[in-house]
Amino acid sequence: MAQKKIGKQTFQFSSVPVVTSWASVVGPKEGQGPLGDKYDLVLTDSLAGEKTWEKAEQKMMQYSMELALEKQELLPKDLDLYLAGDLLNQIISANFTARFLNTPFLGLYGACSTLAQGLCVAGILLEGGFAEKIGVSASSHHDTAERQFRTPTELGDQRPMTAQWTVTGSASFLVERIGTGIMLTHATIGKINDLGVSNTQDLGSAMAPAALDTIKTHLEDLGRSEDDYDLIVTGDLGFLGSNILKELLQQNDISPKKINDCGIMVYSPSQDTHAGGSGCGCSAVVLAAHLIERLRKGLDQRILFVGTGALLSQISAFQGESIPCIAHAVVLEARGEVK
Amino acid sequence: MAQKKIGKQTFQFSSVPVVTSWASVVGPKEGQGPLGDKYDLVLTDSLAGEKTWEKAEQKMMQYSMELALEKQELLPKDLDLYLAGDLLNQIISANFTARFLNTPFLGLYGACSTLAQGLCVAGILLEGGFAEKIGVSASSHHDTAERQFRTPTELGDQRPMTAQWTVTGSASFLVERIGTGIMLTHATIGKINDLGVSNTQDLGSAMAPAALDTIKTHLEDLGRSEDDYDLIVTGDLGFLGSNILKELLQQNDISPKKINDCGIMVYSPSQDTHAGGSGCGCSAVVLAAHLIERLRKGLDQRILFVGTGALLSQISAFQGESIPCIAHAVVLEARGEVK
Repeated sequence: MAQKKIGKQTFQFSSVPVVTSWASVVGPKEGQGPLGDKYDLVLTDSLAGEKTWEKAEQKMMQYSMELALEKQELLPKDLDLYLAGDLLNQIISANFTARFLNTPFLGLYGACSTLAQGLCVAGILLEGGFAEKIGVSASSHHDTAERQFRTPTELGDQRPMTAQWTVTGSASFLVERIGTGIMLTHATIGKINDLGVSNTQDLGSAMAPAALDTIKTHLEDLGRSEDDYDLIVTGDLGFLGSNILKELLQQNDISPKKINDCGIMVYSPSQDTHAGGSGCGCSAVVLAAHLIERLRKGLDQRILFVGTGALLSQISAFQGESIPCIAHAVVLEARGEVK
Repeated sequence: MAQKKIGKQTFQFSSVPVVTSWASVVGPKEGQGPLGDKYDLVLTDSLAGEKTWEKAEQKMMQYSMELALEKQELLPKDLDLYLAGDLLNQIISANFTARFLNTPFLGLYGACSTLAQGLCVAGILLEGGFAEKIGVSASSHHDTAERQFRTPTELGDQRPMTAQWTVTGSASFLVERIGTGIMLTHATIGKINDLGVSNTQDLGSAMAPAALDTIKTHLEDLGRSEDDYDLIVTGDLGFLGSNILKELLQQNDISPKKINDCGIMVYSPSQDTHAGGSGCGCSAVVLAAHLIERLRKGLDQRILFVGTGALLSQISAFQGESIPCIAHAVVLEARGEVK
């Protein structure tokens, strides 16, 4: 059997699972952003024809998975397993999507690291020989997240400049044991990092040390450097958190020149989102619409996709707890036909 | 490579991962129940010396994992991975326990099926060669769950007779690739079943069809019958749900004679919990304190442990949604030294 675990926290997928299809659905604000013309579907309003934002979020997740399957001429019943999660209490977007798909389902919670966590678990299942085709989704919705974690958007609370804007969007990925597409070669499972930040309006600062830990561990585990990647992209540290990460990397003798962040890429500065985008949907839609397309076109050859999650709840914040953060990473590579 | 997937939804763990250690911590009411003298620790009050019930729940989870490790003379750093989840929004009990343990962590959400889900994923990771030692935990707390899902307990709302009592308790399990203990031979990953029940005070009825689906699929996948098991035990259908399951099994030509339920076993009728126990902690503590001990003593040879989860949230219920339910199952066997 080929070696599966490399170093402390990294798994090697020697059989090379392949991301064969992907799709993204976003809200109107995201459609007006710099990646606007790259999403598969841009909603004209944040309700998507539903009565509640929660139902709209679930619809986005479902539609993105259906679209990803359609591109491969597959149906939900062709999936061996479905892995999904979201920010909502009890991950209801994922649960109701799994109800629609009617496939075996494992619910995940990793906050904004959920998509990366799902890709890690998909890789484990495919490399282990447990499945042929796995669907992975993550979603978030600005209005469902705001009213759950902070205040109802109708209140119009002034947001501090450190706050990020939760992305309204969902993306889904089809990962197969055999196929043509983007290769999933490694996964690094993160540990909790908590340096004591308790400001729920500054999650980027809270999450930066977790991103550092996972990137550093990943490079050490594989004996690689930042030069082995065309891009090391974090989930959603935003402007503030990403700058902190760059400083932390330099302090650890890792050059920050390959670093970018999905929370920075998803909106333009003129959209006035303050510290950038966030939410499980943020890194998911940027990966599906932009990053993985660059790999497909050969513009990048190998990227490290680092999902970052702030694992707080409203009640843990109310009770004065600091914010436990995590980052999971996967390596995606361009060359990719596995037969 | 040995065949990993059998039938539609079942994984076979030919390398036979071993549950080598387990521990349970419960609240006072559980301590007064029929399994009272079998738990590793019974708290004298539901706050466990903490200021909030949420912190008490997290403490129970942490302590049960520490105890399980201690029995094997291991430390948290010896774990390759930690898999955990709970009922609280954003699974904070698990997140803060993972912060304490400081091990690579995958957060799971499967409501009351979480422990079974964790054992399924542990089996996958160990069989796949990704890890040597994995910790798995689940917890619930009556007062944290009531105020989150229903009403604060201080209100003293009258509960209907269909309602179950959320167990205050947590159990943790150490699953190893090599060791002496209880063998984890198969896992069946469930699909969502939702027959339209929307009464959040009758989760047993909602979950029974999911339990049927997983048990039926499991037996079909392996070409086994109920006679191949000493016990088929569901997570927490309670009295009402378990009776419905028995009827559903009979309608499907499966004898219900091997069926029991952790929600029935955890309290005595005199404790007036109405329909029985529930919560992620329910099946976890009954497995750790009672079921797995019976296997260890050779009183049972092989059981099917079926975790059942009602994947609703307070907001999905408020918005009129019915309750999507799931059941994940693992096979545990008594004979067990793998070298």
